[in-house]
Amino acid sequence: MNYPKGVKPIAQGEVIKKSKKSAGRAKIKTGNRGMAFEAAINESNEYYRERNLALITKRPTPINVVKVDYSKGALITQAYFEKQSTTDYNGVYKGRYLDFEAKSTLSKTSFPLHNIPKQQIDHLERVLSQGGIAFFLIECVSLNETYLLPASYIIDFYHSRPRQSIPVEKIKKHGHLVKEGYSPRFDYLPLVEEVFLK
Amino acid sequence: MNYPKGVKPIAQGEVIKKSKKSAGRAKIKTGNRGMAFEAAINESNEYYRERNLALITKRPTPINVVKVDYSKGALITQAYFEKQSTTDYNGVYKGRYLDFEAKSTLSKTSFPLHNIPKQQIDHLERVLSQGGIAFFLIECVSLNETYLLPASYIIDFYHSRPRQSIPVEKIKKHGHLVKEGYSPRFDYLPLVEEVFLK
Repeated sequence: MNYPKGVKPIAQGEVIKKSKKSAGRAKIKTGNRGMAFEAAINESNEYYRERNLALITKRPTPINVVKVDYSKGALITQAYFEKQSTTDYNGVYKGRYLDFEAKSTLSKTSFPLHNIPKQQIDHLERVLSQGGIAFFLIECVSLNETYLLPASYIIDFYHSRPRQSIPVEKIKKHGHLVKEGYSPRFDYLPLVEEVFLK
Repeated sequence: MNYPKGVKPIAQGEVIKKSKKSAGRAKIKTGNRGMAFEAAINESNEYYRERNLALITKRPTPINVVKVDYSKGALITQAYFEKQSTTDYNGVYKGRYLDFEAKSTLSKTSFPLHNIPKQQIDHLERVLSQGGIAFFLIECVSLNETYLLPASYIIDFYHSRPRQSIPVEKIKKHGHLVKEGYSPRFDYLPLVEEVFLK
């Protein structure tokens, strides 16, 4: 997979191959900022779930299973990661349907559009046309800031395409700064309330 | 995995190991009624999606990836199917959040409760408390009938547990017969409208 410069996708459950020495414990990639972001969002969702504030789940990474060894209790021996054709997260808040994608960017200046597959734009358009709430959480790693950006803004930008990437100042202008803390790590739910339900 | 007598889970993306002779084409299990049911529901969802009537997606089967060979372009060489801790389907209809599980039963008389994991009940309770719409689609294979049964009914039955399985007459009484046809195969959306939104 080729990722645009400065952008790392959120790793989806990838685990580094175990070496023989460390057999029995899978090493998780360290320093993968996208994965840390994902973990923090999962934690925030868990926080909301426990308090019955919202129920938001992560879609499992789709995996194309090619070979299964049933002699070993359905051991998958050949499979490939597939691209998510929808988004990573969806759920329910006050009866309303929520759908969002979380992305990290290392760039200091912009968020490259080719980081967003066309399928994801199509999916989010459908969510909006069904009356759902749709947005992106964009972590600007170099700024140490995360923004909630309504999907409608990104969809417009995607189609009108004034540039190949969304400048950070536009993200700041049209997005909403997510409050970070200890728990929940990314408290985006009050923004959902403010931006979409008021 | 042990499945209760008379009940087959919906197979989640399982593919039989390719034999050397048929390399290049994976054989799909035939005669797996649950899988046919899943395929028919996916088709129905596709029908709703294309006509912008609703957007309902199947959660990918969660897979626990143990070993990945990066020398071969992220080839997964060791992994296991995991149980879905939520439900198979969720989505949006007229802004509202929908969540449901699809099950097939071969039994002529009842739907065994041990076919429903506790986690699924917990999940559906949370959906309801967030104001979401939650139900089961139960295919009674021997009757050649499929019912939409509100999750609230099953949750009550699960907790009060008058029996270990829900008798078919209760499913007929508290459920709603899903109209079957050529396309969509299972037209459950009008029932969602009627049962939950009117």
